[in-house]
Amino acid sequence: MTSTISINDNHLLKLAPLEVPNRLLLGPGPSNAHPTVLQAMNTTPLGHLDPAFLALMDEIQSLLRYVWQTENPHTIAVSGTGTAAMEATLANTVEPGDVVLIGVAGYFGNRLVDMAGRYGADVRTISKPWGQVFSLDEISTALETHKPAILALVHAETSTGARQPLAEVGELCRKYGTLLLVDTVTSLGGVPIFLDEWGVDLAYSCSQKGLGCSPGASPFTMSTRAMEKLQKRETKVANWYLDMLLLGKYWGSERIYHHTAPINLYYGLREALRLVAAEGLANCWQRHQKNVEYLWESLESIGLKMHVEKEYRLPTLTTVCIPEGVDGKVVARQLLLEHNIEVGGGLGELAGKVWRVGLMGFNSRPESVDRLIEALKQVLGK
Amino acid sequence: MTSTISINDNHLLKLAPLEVPNRLLLGPGPSNAHPTVLQAMNTTPLGHLDPAFLALMDEIQSLLRYVWQTENPHTIAVSGTGTAAMEATLANTVEPGDVVLIGVAGYFGNRLVDMAGRYGADVRTISKPWGQVFSLDEISTALETHKPAILALVHAETSTGARQPLAEVGELCRKYGTLLLVDTVTSLGGVPIFLDEWGVDLAYSCSQKGLGCSPGASPFTMSTRAMEKLQKRETKVANWYLDMLLLGKYWGSERIYHHTAPINLYYGLREALRLVAAEGLANCWQRHQKNVEYLWESLESIGLKMHVEKEYRLPTLTTVCIPEGVDGKVVARQLLLEHNIEVGGGLGELAGKVWRVGLMGFNSRPESVDRLIEALKQVLGK
Repeated sequence: MTSTISINDNHLLKLAPLEVPNRLLLGPGPSNAHPTVLQAMNTTPLGHLDPAFLALMDEIQSLLRYVWQTENPHTIAVSGTGTAAMEATLANTVEPGDVVLIGVAGYFGNRLVDMAGRYGADVRTISKPWGQVFSLDEISTALETHKPAILALVHAETSTGARQPLAEVGELCRKYGTLLLVDTVTSLGGVPIFLDEWGVDLAYSCSQKGLGCSPGASPFTMSTRAMEKLQKRETKVANWYLDMLLLGKYWGSERIYHHTAPINLYYGLREALRLVAAEGLANCWQRHQKNVEYLWESLESIGLKMHVEKEYRLPTLTTVCIPEGVDGKVVARQLLLEHNIEVGGGLGELAGKVWRVGLMGFNSRPESVDRLIEALKQVLGK
Repeated sequence: MTSTISINDNHLLKLAPLEVPNRLLLGPGPSNAHPTVLQAMNTTPLGHLDPAFLALMDEIQSLLRYVWQTENPHTIAVSGTGTAAMEATLANTVEPGDVVLIGVAGYFGNRLVDMAGRYGADVRTISKPWGQVFSLDEISTALETHKPAILALVHAETSTGARQPLAEVGELCRKYGTLLLVDTVTSLGGVPIFLDEWGVDLAYSCSQKGLGCSPGASPFTMSTRAMEKLQKRETKVANWYLDMLLLGKYWGSERIYHHTAPINLYYGLREALRLVAAEGLANCWQRHQKNVEYLWESLESIGLKMHVEKEYRLPTLTTVCIPEGVDGKVVARQLLLEHNIEVGGGLGELAGKVWRVGLMGFNSRPESVDRLIEALKQVLGK
């Protein structure tokens, strides 16, 4: 039947085995994964219903609760990158017409706006210049005005390097029956987070930043309150892949097949979480803080300034002002191609104005800072 | 501020480094990835906008066109497992109210029905007992009746082991302005596919079967006709993560950031595709066919029967009838725990009636067959 059709070789490439340059990834992510994590990914796969794999999923769930400091039973890894986990929070809880209030002070606030709209939300926003954060008063006023079903805030704005304080926000939300949704993509593992203490109902993150894993399996958690909203929906979740009612039957005791998990990434995530647990969460947070302070001092010592006020700076990601007369893109390219160091450029309001320097997970080490400063000195002619 | 909260160690586990049993995965997937592929995943990550990574994405695109036998410019890997790529086909092309006709002869046909409904489709179905396929006449009549915007067929029904012939279906579709959407999850790399010859407009697959990769980065392709439907949409795609207009700007020449790709999985996928290209597509198909015929003969030699008529059997996945009086689950469990061999059970109509045996990618070798038959003989007491 098909044997009469001849094979078209137009797109046939004869390639050599994979070889990639060895970069130090000090941009906004991905960061270099811990070597132990990469080694674990080179392990023969198990089936997604193998008892040995199900046990590994339980370990991931438990350790995600630990790093997020939550008791939420529904704490899992989504089979996609952080953006998929972000989408999962909205897809499951937004019903058409729900008022969703979003704090926008950077690129990822805007992404939440776009996503929420796609799920039929009546989106309201409050905004701040990129690099600033919202005060508790500003949040309180906005909640009073909009009485939203969901308030979404970005804990660690990857585009600006600012840390949004969250203490007491959850309490305010409870006054209005509002669910609190938080982006912890650039904070999980590197910045103190106490989800339950803060009354956070929905959170998502990624694997390749504070956790020091490779990207592709992304932490997701929802509180019992958020689960109740999901269970009361009148319409199916408009996203089969990320439907937490279906996924809960796979991650929970029923073990009903939903989709084939990215097995080897889960190996990596399990190892990354094991390493954080072995270090201890408090030590891990302190290491990130100590190394970023060394970075800030070192950058200042060569005449560079930070974009965000010190009090609100993230330990994981720093926005560094590009000096007058310097072409930030040219510098970043030189760092990459001449020194094998990746730093990020600015997005949106900060395009052309800052470099974004990440010190996350395995890369949060003094050696990373020293190597960057040495290279910057050469490139900037300091 | 946060220093007064003490860390809760309830969910802290102190784990040993990862160790997993070494299984031969002869179920419906995942299959064992090629050792070279796993080794490639243990390579330090690049940034998702690094020129070296963008070049690797180009290689993936080209080789996906080769294995699918298509010229579609929009041929990419989705950052999720096969189910995400499946969802991407519907999310991008279904607009609320569109008539979507789906051929249901197994579990994955049903999944398409569920998914399409979530995107607002007016879903119509034709159905067959599980294990059978639709004739061209049946398809033609259904097209005439429903005049759908999209016809979705499962080329390789993973739940039944049946291969749906597709020659001439695309021509019929063109008479009604219908887009042809095809599930090639269990066929890509292992079963002859000629997407362009067959007039297929949308297809998806996975990495962990015929391609011999690890799961998590999944092939997706759409024709120019399908792209036109996407471009003419009146509403945004109700799925940000899988929006092909946004993804096209990352995979295309603009290189605009969309999400952080699962870097190390792309390394693996590139290597898996490189190995298929080195073997040659025709050789790869022939190897799958030859080894499955050896499997069928071997199974028959120990008195077992196949569920699907020979003409429509897949070379990648075989459904084997469980003999009267045998508990299929007990046998599968013994194979797994005593012989380290995974086979799958039946789903839906075939639950308790068949085992599903995959010979895909790296696992399509005579040694896999020999090991399975030896173990089956012991377990069944033959």
